[in-house]
Amino acid sequence: MNYRMISHTLGSVLACLAVLMLLPLAAGLCYGENVLGFVVAVVITAAVSFFLRSFKPRSTDIYAREGFVIVGLAWISMSLLGALPFVISGQIPNYIDAVFETVSGFTTTGASILTDIEGMSHGCLFWRSFTHWIGGMGVLVFVMAVLPMSGEHSMHIMRAEVPGPTVGKLVPRARETAKILYLMYMALTALETIFLKAGGMSFFDALLHAFGTAGTGGFSTKAASVGAFNSLYVEMVISVFMLLFSVNFNLYYLLLIGRVKDVLKNEELRWFLAIVLFSVLTIAVNISGMYGSFTTALRHAFFNVSTIISTTGFGTVDFNLWPQYSKWLLILLMFIGACAGSTGGGLKVSRVVMLLKSAEAELKKMIRPRSVTRVQLEGKRVETGAVHAVNTFFVMYLMILLVCTLLISVDGFDMETNFTGALACLSNIGPGMSLVGPTGSYSMFSSFSKIILSLAMLIGRLEIYPILLLFSRHTWKR
Amino acid sequence: MNYRMISHTLGSVLACLAVLMLLPLAAGLCYGENVLGFVVAVVITAAVSFFLRSFKPRSTDIYAREGFVIVGLAWISMSLLGALPFVISGQIPNYIDAVFETVSGFTTTGASILTDIEGMSHGCLFWRSFTHWIGGMGVLVFVMAVLPMSGEHSMHIMRAEVPGPTVGKLVPRARETAKILYLMYMALTALETIFLKAGGMSFFDALLHAFGTAGTGGFSTKAASVGAFNSLYVEMVISVFMLLFSVNFNLYYLLLIGRVKDVLKNEELRWFLAIVLFSVLTIAVNISGMYGSFTTALRHAFFNVSTIISTTGFGTVDFNLWPQYSKWLLILLMFIGACAGSTGGGLKVSRVVMLLKSAEAELKKMIRPRSVTRVQLEGKRVETGAVHAVNTFFVMYLMILLVCTLLISVDGFDMETNFTGALACLSNIGPGMSLVGPTGSYSMFSSFSKIILSLAMLIGRLEIYPILLLFSRHTWKR
Repeated sequence: MNYRMISHTLGSVLACLAVLMLLPLAAGLCYGENVLGFVVAVVITAAVSFFLRSFKPRSTDIYAREGFVIVGLAWISMSLLGALPFVISGQIPNYIDAVFETVSGFTTTGASILTDIEGMSHGCLFWRSFTHWIGGMGVLVFVMAVLPMSGEHSMHIMRAEVPGPTVGKLVPRARETAKILYLMYMALTALETIFLKAGGMSFFDALLHAFGTAGTGGFSTKAASVGAFNSLYVEMVISVFMLLFSVNFNLYYLLLIGRVKDVLKNEELRWFLAIVLFSVLTIAVNISGMYGSFTTALRHAFFNVSTIISTTGFGTVDFNLWPQYSKWLLILLMFIGACAGSTGGGLKVSRVVMLLKSAEAELKKMIRPRSVTRVQLEGKRVETGAVHAVNTFFVMYLMILLVCTLLISVDGFDMETNFTGALACLSNIGPGMSLVGPTGSYSMFSSFSKIILSLAMLIGRLEIYPILLLFSRHTWKR
Repeated sequence: MNYRMISHTLGSVLACLAVLMLLPLAAGLCYGENVLGFVVAVVITAAVSFFLRSFKPRSTDIYAREGFVIVGLAWISMSLLGALPFVISGQIPNYIDAVFETVSGFTTTGASILTDIEGMSHGCLFWRSFTHWIGGMGVLVFVMAVLPMSGEHSMHIMRAEVPGPTVGKLVPRARETAKILYLMYMALTALETIFLKAGGMSFFDALLHAFGTAGTGGFSTKAASVGAFNSLYVEMVISVFMLLFSVNFNLYYLLLIGRVKDVLKNEELRWFLAIVLFSVLTIAVNISGMYGSFTTALRHAFFNVSTIISTTGFGTVDFNLWPQYSKWLLILLMFIGACAGSTGGGLKVSRVVMLLKSAEAELKKMIRPRSVTRVQLEGKRVETGAVHAVNTFFVMYLMILLVCTLLISVDGFDMETNFTGALACLSNIGPGMSLVGPTGSYSMFSSFSKIILSLAMLIGRLEIYPILLLFSRHTWKR
């Protein structure tokens, strides 16, 4: 294990974090707020970064193992240090609460322990939403894009941080790929800010909601979330952008270089749109009785299906009050999540499609034991090893969900709260059902449960391995 | 597809069913009841059997495909005909309700739509419990044991009906294996009846509870289930026998031929006992506040852990009122279920162990992509194909559970009822939580939901493939 290289890279990530914290600091100054919390946090983060970078690596070689460890430790240390402004400013006095909120930000979950959002300072609100934006695309991808790193092995880091069963490079060099991804990400965020500003939102609200959408996070500046703006236009803009940010970013690159046909033929995209269409229509029918007209039902169904499948978690109405069919369908969407290579969470559509296809192949094999059955995706044959990896991923996901629910059950809240809360954290959604529904929060959980749920969020965002491997003896063995 | 052989074998199964129905008929006569329902049902079943057996097979060859189809169709037709006595006698006037109750019996689920159990005739109560006993070991295994069948290919049938990832023959011939299994099954049932009779139960109650235990079914002769007898002795006898019937029957054969060491070294048995021990102890601690003393808590924890992990479903206290940790742990046990090769349901302990080991292997592989990682069970290497099959099985199990919950959600009952109801049917437990808890029933569900849940019970008992393959185009293709 190349410990020096791990330490050095972590140092670079934290240097980046210190610089990024200057933005909420500046936002706080703009509004004439006390920014001592941010100043102290920047100083501490810079000091830790300086210390970690003082270990000069003798070799810059890193392999899969180092890649996972770097990503796992980077996200944990970012969360521990990113929580400081909330604590020092006194806006979230309890450190564990602050870490929960920061993990929820970086992992783009959007689960909150806050009960009085309008009472927060502009600086802290900015930082909260900004963590979504940073976490959406990945901090290490960002570091790769801006800092000169050894190009050869950086792919290991990218693989560990970017969601989805496989990671394709857009261009031969990983660093260039990271740059292109971030440029498209910024462009789309800017576009959404402009659209929202045009709809009458303040620049501050528009920018922060764009951050929340881009990262598919879901922190809002209002306790009533997007519903507070009470505007069909705002809801439609955010719905569409939530879906846009749920799509594999590689498709935007294909659009940019003019390969429109390849985008239209994309199998994952087609499944994604089919799932959205089916869910919106059947939910609209199911809830139409509650909202008087089918048009209103369609509006709420579209927004809430988008917010859940994109794993954002913005709210307009309380879907916790919807009929059971709609509620359970939303829970199924929480499992599925967005497309691979997007900023969204969940299992990812392509994984679910592969699971269905591999189940069908297994059925076929029962009938004809000696026949060769192949799983195909995007017109290409998926190797047996990759199919197996996706199945194991699902098994681990479910086991983590079930055990996590057991652990937080100790607090004694109802089963729906525990199960959907654990799922909403693991799939990086934010709101679940019952007490953690759109009008609730995670504030009532014990510190122990908050730590468990924070781990679940990290496990979900980093797709299990970087966090689980930190606790595995195989990682640390020579 | 050898249609004539399928028809002929189905005919033999139904002939067997007609003969087996003579027992509840006799029981009814003993108690001087009107047995017209049974007489008519026997005549109809015999007629259908006669018709199906009139197709003489030109060849007795059957392969995997025919094996699955025979088992799937046999269980469905047994349920459709087995429901007749309930309907004709007017004890369960609604045919769908009667089919639900019969499927629940044969699949050893024990989920009931009855609300007035004490009001049932002795004949119907006997038939209800006897379906558990028949379904526990498998009807086709029984047919194989008593009728002369082509020995060579009968393994395909056994593989499709006996639970667990693999089926081992005790002796070279499948038919002899089936005979030995049934003899041990009868001996254990007789033993339990004697023990229960000795504890003061009537012979009728003792026998029927032994049937329910042996099949790990859970239908009782009392609305309050085992709790109605209010006897520590009865609870302990039933608890121990529930655990005995959750163990792989091959182990009893090993005991019989003196290979005690092999039994003690059995990995699945050790995991099973460890899970039981852990669950009983932590639940006892968790519920001790409710029952005054730790001893009473231990008594209730032991009985209810046994009843759930064995997938029997007898009840003594209402675990639906227990704290959330205990409730969720019971739900985890509902997933796990009993050992392979027992009469119990669920995923089976050996599958869960293989899932855990394959997850660990996948973690290892992430760190050392080029190393060869092997999954071992019972000291032997498990082939990659088998590991993959177990993972796919889990994926299908979960997907069926989630979709089944969605379908029955349409009825509008609460989420806990729907999710645990679907799980309790799929894992062949019987009681779930909330409305379908130990003091509830499945009577309030719509006919549509009852059909869905009946299919779930069959899918669970026959381990997915025989039922799913009936609906697959691959099965019927030339």
